[in-house]
Amino acid sequence: MTAYDPENIFAKILRAEIPSSRVYEDDDTVAFMDIMPRTDGHLLVIPKTPCRNILDATPAQLAAVTATVQKMAKAVVAAFDADGVTIQQFNEAAGGQEVFHLHFHILPRHDGVAVRAPGTMGDFDLIAQHAEKIKAALS
Amino acid sequence: MTAYDPENIFAKILRAEIPSSRVYEDDDTVAFMDIMPRTDGHLLVIPKTPCRNILDATPAQLAAVTATVQKMAKAVVAAFDADGVTIQQFNEAAGGQEVFHLHFHILPRHDGVAVRAPGTMGDFDLIAQHAEKIKAALS
Repeated sequence: MTAYDPENIFAKILRAEIPSSRVYEDDDTVAFMDIMPRTDGHLLVIPKTPCRNILDATPAQLAAVTATVQKMAKAVVAAFDADGVTIQQFNEAAGGQEVFHLHFHILPRHDGVAVRAPGTMGDFDLIAQHAEKIKAALS
Repeated sequence: MTAYDPENIFAKILRAEIPSSRVYEDDDTVAFMDIMPRTDGHLLVIPKTPCRNILDATPAQLAAVTATVQKMAKAVVAAFDADGVTIQQFNEAAGGQEVFHLHFHILPRHDGVAVRAPGTMGDFDLIAQHAEKIKAALS
């Protein structure tokens, strides 16, 4: 597998070289808003330490990320009164991965509301509002 | 959240009341072939103990399932010389869930090959062949 590239976007977000809307952080993981949200409240969860995806993650990295994924899934249900949650995790380009730092997508879902097409930049004010709702649900 | 229904299909598979193509089993988890494979080698990983989805799973259930998901992701890459892996995990009907026992979908992916539409029954002989390839990669 290709080596980890420390210049990927999420590595830059972790180093605060580019901004992000963080909603949660612990010793091992960070959760922040996807800037191309496929549903309102679309979140990403990543480990703080480098790995490309599930194929090279250590068991400890994966366990830490998964625990945060569960916490965030519950938080978005509370924040948005969601009816469900869709979780996606893509590995390598053929698997749908675009940023090569392990990440899980968490999409709050509502009955009868489809996921939006990928690749459309969201409204940053709205994303910030959604981040605040998630942070409130976590506190 | 709705209570766990012990008559769901995966509970019946765990009790061997209906057949499945198991490729892996440990104390806490089982991996078996999806009978409506969206890619060749499409697998499911479930805990042996009851929980509806990520919203009611215990940390121990989730950790055990995730460890098996990682093992199976690596196995399908080896078995099918896959270029990537797509992982999906659906929670409640609004989130895409159809069987209400926690499960992760593992889809081996190849460059340029799209995921098939959902809901089409697979060829059981072919699924059995794919199961054998995964078991060989695990051994």
